[in-house]
Amino acid sequence: MCAVENVDLLISGGIVVTMDPQERIFPNGAVAVRDSKLCRVGPREEVEKAVHPKKVIDASGTVIMPGLVNAHTHAAMTLFRGLADDIPLKPWLEKIWPLELKYATAQNVVLGSKLAFAEMIRGGTTTAADMYWHFYESAEAAKQVGFRLFTGTVALDAMDGETTQSLGKNMRAFVDLYKDDPLICPSIQVHGTYTVSKETLLVAKSAARESGVVFTTHASETRQEVEEMIAQHGMTPIEYLDEIGLLNSKTLLAHCVHLKDKEISLLAQKGTSVVHCPTSNLKLGSGIARISDLLKAGVNVAIGTDGVASNNDLNMWEEMRLAALLQKGIHFDPTVLPAGQALKMATLGGAKALNLQDKIGSLIPGKRADLIQVDLNTSNMTPVYDVISHLVYAANASDVRMTMINGEILYQNQKLLTIDEEEIKSQVRKLSEEMLQKD
Amino acid sequence: MCAVENVDLLISGGIVVTMDPQERIFPNGAVAVRDSKLCRVGPREEVEKAVHPKKVIDASGTVIMPGLVNAHTHAAMTLFRGLADDIPLKPWLEKIWPLELKYATAQNVVLGSKLAFAEMIRGGTTTAADMYWHFYESAEAAKQVGFRLFTGTVALDAMDGETTQSLGKNMRAFVDLYKDDPLICPSIQVHGTYTVSKETLLVAKSAARESGVVFTTHASETRQEVEEMIAQHGMTPIEYLDEIGLLNSKTLLAHCVHLKDKEISLLAQKGTSVVHCPTSNLKLGSGIARISDLLKAGVNVAIGTDGVASNNDLNMWEEMRLAALLQKGIHFDPTVLPAGQALKMATLGGAKALNLQDKIGSLIPGKRADLIQVDLNTSNMTPVYDVISHLVYAANASDVRMTMINGEILYQNQKLLTIDEEEIKSQVRKLSEEMLQKD
Repeated sequence: MCAVENVDLLISGGIVVTMDPQERIFPNGAVAVRDSKLCRVGPREEVEKAVHPKKVIDASGTVIMPGLVNAHTHAAMTLFRGLADDIPLKPWLEKIWPLELKYATAQNVVLGSKLAFAEMIRGGTTTAADMYWHFYESAEAAKQVGFRLFTGTVALDAMDGETTQSLGKNMRAFVDLYKDDPLICPSIQVHGTYTVSKETLLVAKSAARESGVVFTTHASETRQEVEEMIAQHGMTPIEYLDEIGLLNSKTLLAHCVHLKDKEISLLAQKGTSVVHCPTSNLKLGSGIARISDLLKAGVNVAIGTDGVASNNDLNMWEEMRLAALLQKGIHFDPTVLPAGQALKMATLGGAKALNLQDKIGSLIPGKRADLIQVDLNTSNMTPVYDVISHLVYAANASDVRMTMINGEILYQNQKLLTIDEEEIKSQVRKLSEEMLQKD
Repeated sequence: MCAVENVDLLISGGIVVTMDPQERIFPNGAVAVRDSKLCRVGPREEVEKAVHPKKVIDASGTVIMPGLVNAHTHAAMTLFRGLADDIPLKPWLEKIWPLELKYATAQNVVLGSKLAFAEMIRGGTTTAADMYWHFYESAEAAKQVGFRLFTGTVALDAMDGETTQSLGKNMRAFVDLYKDDPLICPSIQVHGTYTVSKETLLVAKSAARESGVVFTTHASETRQEVEEMIAQHGMTPIEYLDEIGLLNSKTLLAHCVHLKDKEISLLAQKGTSVVHCPTSNLKLGSGIARISDLLKAGVNVAIGTDGVASNNDLNMWEEMRLAALLQKGIHFDPTVLPAGQALKMATLGGAKALNLQDKIGSLIPGKRADLIQVDLNTSNMTPVYDVISHLVYAANASDVRMTMINGEILYQNQKLLTIDEEEIKSQVRKLSEEMLQKD
């Protein structure tokens, strides 16, 4: 906690939704920021009395809340937005993969990642878990922009020329480089149990264990994947990961659409987190994950957009809303997955999944100042009876008025302050025209 | 078709998505408007050569497309936005109904409707099918604003003091008053088969038949409704409506979540339209409608938001996207309900459901100029490979740049031109505070 006197910034007058353990909401609240961290969160009068701010933001008519955590995406795939929709997985892969091999160069990954950061920052996402090639370059792009990025060496047997040993070394090298970075959260990543060898998974396990960071992979996304794993290994992807020793509280599994009861118990018992990507699961015909059963079992569930090639945007408001809606629909019960729980999944749940719960995910003094302001005065947000309900069922990305990451304002007055958005968009458009012409 | 020389407005340079029978798209197109109607739609050069416009809009970087048709809502329920979420139907009704009885006065319905029109116009919805009390007043409010409203006498046995005979007279009186109105589309409405008597349904049937307008009602929204109808009448709501003679090509049924195969065949055979409200059906725990089966059978399907008390916004982009996504998810097939079909449901499908297919729903010379411009240069829409895919999977309400209804521009440069939005919002906020204090 910082001293009460001098602070860098006071944001006061809005409804502060803390997402703290008591789920406190301050209807006329304020937060103070010092040295990239929150130092005061509370009722306006109390905070205002306690601080001498260098700068003040009048937050009247807005919600001040933790930034959203997009716990699973492939950021640079903005380059391929809408390129292959409404088609089965095989033709989708046949269309996307050759383009990725040809166009996902380091330079283009930086470009696509920056476009993704622009869209996410505009929409109030302050942290994203990225899984893509050229992670050194995207990590540097995130630092340059001021975006909080969870990323790391991603292993996909079929495509890298590394030996398994050098892979382990490379994984640890990335972690070592970024482990103390204020913005980059290094991790160990593997594409999926059906795309890499057991040897690679074991190397990833050792690297994750030695470095103490989160291991993440896709798991049980489609019925076909589960069936093929059973045919090949006699086990589901979840059981296979458990057998290898990869299920623990620092493991984050993306999708988990197809789970048996005993797999849900296993995930709960191991403390493994799941990231739910509802739009992507529907759009690719994967199905609807058993999120309310996971939550009931005590599994930590985060929310992600997945890459835009299967979404086709990076709008966490839509994902959060859809997560809440789908479970009510499939259980024929409007009380399932209420708004507060969905909002928690998209903030603190994401933070926990990325092992960042001590740094972000709620507005608590001492945590990093990753926060956003959401306009309550738009037509679609008027009138306000229940602010939590509004954030989940009525708010949209365009209602975000300010986005702050690590104490820096990156978006305000409809302008991105650290990204030359027009230049990025123009370069991406040029690249897309090249792709269309050549392919 | 109007003469080619003088036109009121030329909108040129955008991608024109016509939704015409050939599903034509003009990548560098233009439309011309004269006397509230479209008089030219085609390639830019061709249209520009043929007209002398009084005014020109440069539409470069935008899509020019038909306005969206929200085929089922309860507009004035904006007054109760987010008042009763995540609770079962019974407590929901117990909370909402007394408030409606007390606060849904003619004056407040105008207020709530205007807020709804503001939100819809901003989001590119140019026509809405409304079902609510004080329909004379909301119709006049729509005319004042310039919004296209489908509405009419709505019967609900439990709540009106009318005799069945006077009800029939009242229904026809409303139709007679508005049948030639350029903006108001009169209809005959009944709440549902489980809330009104057979006598009332018969009166509605006669009124609809005599006046030649569309009859609309809620049907088969919940399992409970279907079960109770079977217990009481030995028939499902659909079968009951058929028995009474209310299924025909001028009937529009809202929801239809729970249908048997033979009911789908029946609806197809009778030419009855269905309006799908995916968010509302999920949020209230009603379930997921069999939309792809309905479409396969040849049923015309429209899309609606339902009232904001069960949504909680009036965003047709979300509904269109969700309609496309849900069917893929429940059928485990990404090819089901492709983007083009979803877009058609939200435009021409809606127009057809409201018997307005000769007036609106596509950009064809001779139709009313109900059209919108959608920005293709936002981060979430960059780059563009497939414009139809973008409109369904990536666009959002905030990407709408201009909304025109009946040849009048109602929204441009982020401003509503016929609604004092700040005043409306301020009055609604005042009313909501009153409700919270007194109840």
